[in-house]
Amino acid sequence: MDSIPMILGFVGLATAFFIYRVVLRYPAGEGKIVEISGAIHDGAMTFMRREYTILFLFAFAITIAIWFSDLGWHTAFAFVVGAVCSSAAGYIGMYTATNANVRTTVAAHQAGADAALGVAFFGGSIMGLTVAAMGLLGLGLLYLMFGQDPHTAHIIHGFGMGASTVALFSRVGGGIYTKSADVAADLVGKVEAGIPEDDPRNPGVIADNVGDNVGDVAGMGSDIFESYCGSIIATIAIASTLSPAIIATLGEQQNLMFLPLALASAGILCSMFGIWLVKAFARKSPQVALRIGTFSAAVIFIVAAYFVIATLGINTNVWFAVLSGAVGGIIIGLVTEYYTSGSPIRKIARGGETGPATVMILGLATGMQSVVVPVLSLAAIIFLANITADLYGVGIAAVGMLATVGITMAIDAYGPVADNAGGIAEMGELGEETRRITDTLDEVGNTTAAIGKGFAIGAAGLAALAIITAYLAAVAENYEQGIALNLNDPEVLMGMFIGAIFPFLVSALTMTAVGDAAFEMIKEIRRQFREIPGLLEGKAKPDTTRTVDIATKAALMRMVAPGALAVISPVIVGFVLGPKTLGGMLGGALLGCVLMALTMANAGGAWDNAKKYVEQGNLGGKGSETHKAAVVGDTVGDPFKDTSGPSMNILINVMAIVSLVIAPML
Amino acid sequence: MDSIPMILGFVGLATAFFIYRVVLRYPAGEGKIVEISGAIHDGAMTFMRREYTILFLFAFAITIAIWFSDLGWHTAFAFVVGAVCSSAAGYIGMYTATNANVRTTVAAHQAGADAALGVAFFGGSIMGLTVAAMGLLGLGLLYLMFGQDPHTAHIIHGFGMGASTVALFSRVGGGIYTKSADVAADLVGKVEAGIPEDDPRNPGVIADNVGDNVGDVAGMGSDIFESYCGSIIATIAIASTLSPAIIATLGEQQNLMFLPLALASAGILCSMFGIWLVKAFARKSPQVALRIGTFSAAVIFIVAAYFVIATLGINTNVWFAVLSGAVGGIIIGLVTEYYTSGSPIRKIARGGETGPATVMILGLATGMQSVVVPVLSLAAIIFLANITADLYGVGIAAVGMLATVGITMAIDAYGPVADNAGGIAEMGELGEETRRITDTLDEVGNTTAAIGKGFAIGAAGLAALAIITAYLAAVAENYEQGIALNLNDPEVLMGMFIGAIFPFLVSALTMTAVGDAAFEMIKEIRRQFREIPGLLEGKAKPDTTRTVDIATKAALMRMVAPGALAVISPVIVGFVLGPKTLGGMLGGALLGCVLMALTMANAGGAWDNAKKYVEQGNLGGKGSETHKAAVVGDTVGDPFKDTSGPSMNILINVMAIVSLVIAPML
Repeated sequence: MDSIPMILGFVGLATAFFIYRVVLRYPAGEGKIVEISGAIHDGAMTFMRREYTILFLFAFAITIAIWFSDLGWHTAFAFVVGAVCSSAAGYIGMYTATNANVRTTVAAHQAGADAALGVAFFGGSIMGLTVAAMGLLGLGLLYLMFGQDPHTAHIIHGFGMGASTVALFSRVGGGIYTKSADVAADLVGKVEAGIPEDDPRNPGVIADNVGDNVGDVAGMGSDIFESYCGSIIATIAIASTLSPAIIATLGEQQNLMFLPLALASAGILCSMFGIWLVKAFARKSPQVALRIGTFSAAVIFIVAAYFVIATLGINTNVWFAVLSGAVGGIIIGLVTEYYTSGSPIRKIARGGETGPATVMILGLATGMQSVVVPVLSLAAIIFLANITADLYGVGIAAVGMLATVGITMAIDAYGPVADNAGGIAEMGELGEETRRITDTLDEVGNTTAAIGKGFAIGAAGLAALAIITAYLAAVAENYEQGIALNLNDPEVLMGMFIGAIFPFLVSALTMTAVGDAAFEMIKEIRRQFREIPGLLEGKAKPDTTRTVDIATKAALMRMVAPGALAVISPVIVGFVLGPKTLGGMLGGALLGCVLMALTMANAGGAWDNAKKYVEQGNLGGKGSETHKAAVVGDTVGDPFKDTSGPSMNILINVMAIVSLVIAPML
Repeated sequence: MDSIPMILGFVGLATAFFIYRVVLRYPAGEGKIVEISGAIHDGAMTFMRREYTILFLFAFAITIAIWFSDLGWHTAFAFVVGAVCSSAAGYIGMYTATNANVRTTVAAHQAGADAALGVAFFGGSIMGLTVAAMGLLGLGLLYLMFGQDPHTAHIIHGFGMGASTVALFSRVGGGIYTKSADVAADLVGKVEAGIPEDDPRNPGVIADNVGDNVGDVAGMGSDIFESYCGSIIATIAIASTLSPAIIATLGEQQNLMFLPLALASAGILCSMFGIWLVKAFARKSPQVALRIGTFSAAVIFIVAAYFVIATLGINTNVWFAVLSGAVGGIIIGLVTEYYTSGSPIRKIARGGETGPATVMILGLATGMQSVVVPVLSLAAIIFLANITADLYGVGIAAVGMLATVGITMAIDAYGPVADNAGGIAEMGELGEETRRITDTLDEVGNTTAAIGKGFAIGAAGLAALAIITAYLAAVAENYEQGIALNLNDPEVLMGMFIGAIFPFLVSALTMTAVGDAAFEMIKEIRRQFREIPGLLEGKAKPDTTRTVDIATKAALMRMVAPGALAVISPVIVGFVLGPKTLGGMLGGALLGCVLMALTMANAGGAWDNAKKYVEQGNLGGKGSETHKAAVVGDTVGDPFKDTSGPSMNILINVMAIVSLVIAPML
């Protein structure tokens, strides 16, 4: 039975490959279309290669450090497996997404809306399934090697650290890339040169489309991958350190350690079923098909979880923890949807009538207000999970939230594929009807992306909490009398203050990185418009390689500082100031990261949609003063929601997992 | 010796009264000037009266609730004394500040810069001395009644709650008032009608000037008063619950309980000396005179503290806690100065060349980055204070930071007096030379205000921390085996998440309150310009009473929700979810409040000065596109730095002190 997760990992990968073959059967278009999509594909792959080169050096250094520390080669090996699995998931997802985008365009052009939805969603599904499958594969393998014995289970933490390190760079680098390209292309193209979005004359447009893949496919995928694996690893870790009294009430320790993997295995099956449902309902509206798929997968998973728990002979109270996590994830997603649509965005848009300052104030207030329900949900999950299964319940709740990641991630990755398809349609001049179809798909993608972002934050927060819990349990094992992290212990307090700095500092660093990189891009795009004769008239081609190169370099250069900060600081604090201060630091960072992530993601989403609301012809429509004010909000929202906000998810998880890894040495 | 604090309280009040007599001896001008300053004075007093009416009802309800709870009439009495002392300090400060402003204008007009500095600074000094004196008076009295016995010392907590309740409403109400008037007057006056700032034709200009007093004098004063008293009360509370082992190393418990009052007594004497120094050096530049005053007072206080500690027979290690607090306060102030001037603001201003979005991004990033050093300083203070005097040291450090409040607050309150003086000069058309002098005074005031804000945040954070520590100690007394607030206890965790919501929610509430109130004001000002014939030509007078009334009503109405939230939530959480969750909640709220307060205050200050930098003729100067972009930043920064940011200080202190008061019942 212990090898089921690994086997299902293979099944998931095989299914993803099968879907990939189906996607490839759709026509890839011809002429200009092929050229454009080729440029996007190449740009994305170049970025990945260069990113992975830097990552390789960084990961190599960490591997050596772990190997020669007291942790030894086992943990170093697990670290490498984690890094490889995460990189592979990102690479496969990107590779297929940049093949699916053009096929979506062609399907929209030749076969209509439901065929296009099918291709776009299949493109996203490959990413979703790959994320889940690579996680099960890697963790299933390590579980077989080290996970069945509570004394060696800690080796698996290395996997989480490997996954997190890759995720950190993908998310931060990808986030800087996508937004610097987006802001620059829009500012010079739409505002200064007065040409439409995604116009082929714009030298920044390929970089912009590459950015969608780099940030929203690969970045998001590695983010979710990390939370997914982190929650499983943390739960195994908590189970391996449970007290005999709690084990007596919950079930056999061996089975408690296996449960998170068993739940994840059930989750991938439910996800596959959900993916099939979406395809089956594709003829209904895209919105409906996607909803049916996600909700059905979640409901079936919740039911299946009960049987998994019962089969393993575990106290069925633990099921309530699964339930609280799964339902909590849905609530957080729906709240995000509320704050990024409907009345809040209309209020922001109306604020535009008195200028950009009002748009800013209302958007920031909306973002800040949006934290209330999600954070209360997290508090409720902690409460419920705990009364049913002690701290083990917190880990299980996180697993419950993330188990159907196959379909949630599929829907998330569908968005950028549809977005790209629209871009290719515009650049390839495929006509209004095609563009109308891709626009519908894109719109649905925007809503699902908002929900997905909320979900990712909730999941990351809960996963991090589980990892921190595991860290505290692991550290306690080093001390004969355990270790208390009292809130009024000055060492802990000091740590909390230090920890709370990180989300603010990393947000500041990533936001300025986008600003600076966009500025360089702007200069280059302006230069090309000025120096390439006939470019604006459509007689000459822009040098898109150059802009892609600038975005790539800027993103890679700027991702190092926040990345290194997140990885190194727990090590320094842990060894210099001690495990208590480190524990406090994780607590402070967790709070800060969750709240900043929610505020920034939702403020950004609200600004984005407020602008779209005006562009639909409300309050004066495009070109009005209100529209200009709304554009300012959107521009600030871009790095908020796609760079700094998402970086928070990884930041806290990296800090937590690094702490968990070094825990045995503290 | 125990009555020294009370005696020095009387001496402080007498000195303040003496200074007030000196101020009154300066001429108050004639004609138009008198009329304008009368309108400001009346507007401010009307607001205070109406605010205090609402406050009275609220405080009356709380008094009854305390009286009939298990806490009894002693605590209810202390609550009333605290509320009365805080109200009196605010009232006296406002009353004299609105008399000093016009005399500053006249002095600038008739006698030149150093006379004007003298009057403005004396106006501020009355507020500073009153704050310190009322604190010493009230707390000195209660100390004599209940404070010498560790078993009745908890009664004094009621004083803190009274002070905090008043402060909460003053700060939030004042903050909403000042910024809604400011934003509305600027937007319609400067932008739409194209008339200069402080122009008498603007119907919102009196409300704007009233706002400076209401927000920056009364609001700020009650904020500092609350931190000042809170730190003293918390230290007494911590001392009353110290373990015998720690008492043995530190000194007699009686003396440890008296030490915070003794330090505050030394502090008021040093402040008086500092005030005298400023006056003595007034002929040098205002900047130099103010610096000499503050720094000398701080240095002398640090030296004096050593002798106070030694005289009381307390371990002189405690002195290092005083030192760390006093030095930490200065560092935090200087960091604030850095981030709101010099290279950061030039970078923001240059960002304006690519539009308002860049200004926003860079300003927010600056605010977020500015938290690093202040928060690290707080962590260092906690560390240092703790190794020298355990948790008692944290309380003493807070007292050390706040002891010279007489002069820091004097310099803070000087700013709005100088600002008002400039407004009166402009409205009274006293000519360029007078305006130049008041402008210089105002500029210095802006810098000192920024430093003062940073200082207020640091002090509030440290005071709140001390109060929370006292709360935990008090709660622990209820349990035979003490109470542990473990970070990985789900009850505590849940509390931390809940607590971290408050700063975000209250920021959102106060920010939208300013937006909504400003919107009402804008409508009224536009109506007057439209309907009063000859107003823009200067032939008719605006109806300023109407605008003052709108701002007053809006501020009072909107301050209730955040105020009630802060007072009631600890009671609900404490009784329903228990003392552990409440403790966690305070921890979460503390972190959130300190970080949000720093971010918002410094981003706001940076935007403000970036705009001023452009207005000085840089990057195209007034009227350029860059200037317009900078104005957007400033408008967003207004509620950031003067409404939502400062509300954070009080929010956490109110939550903490309410918890401390109810601790014996949990």
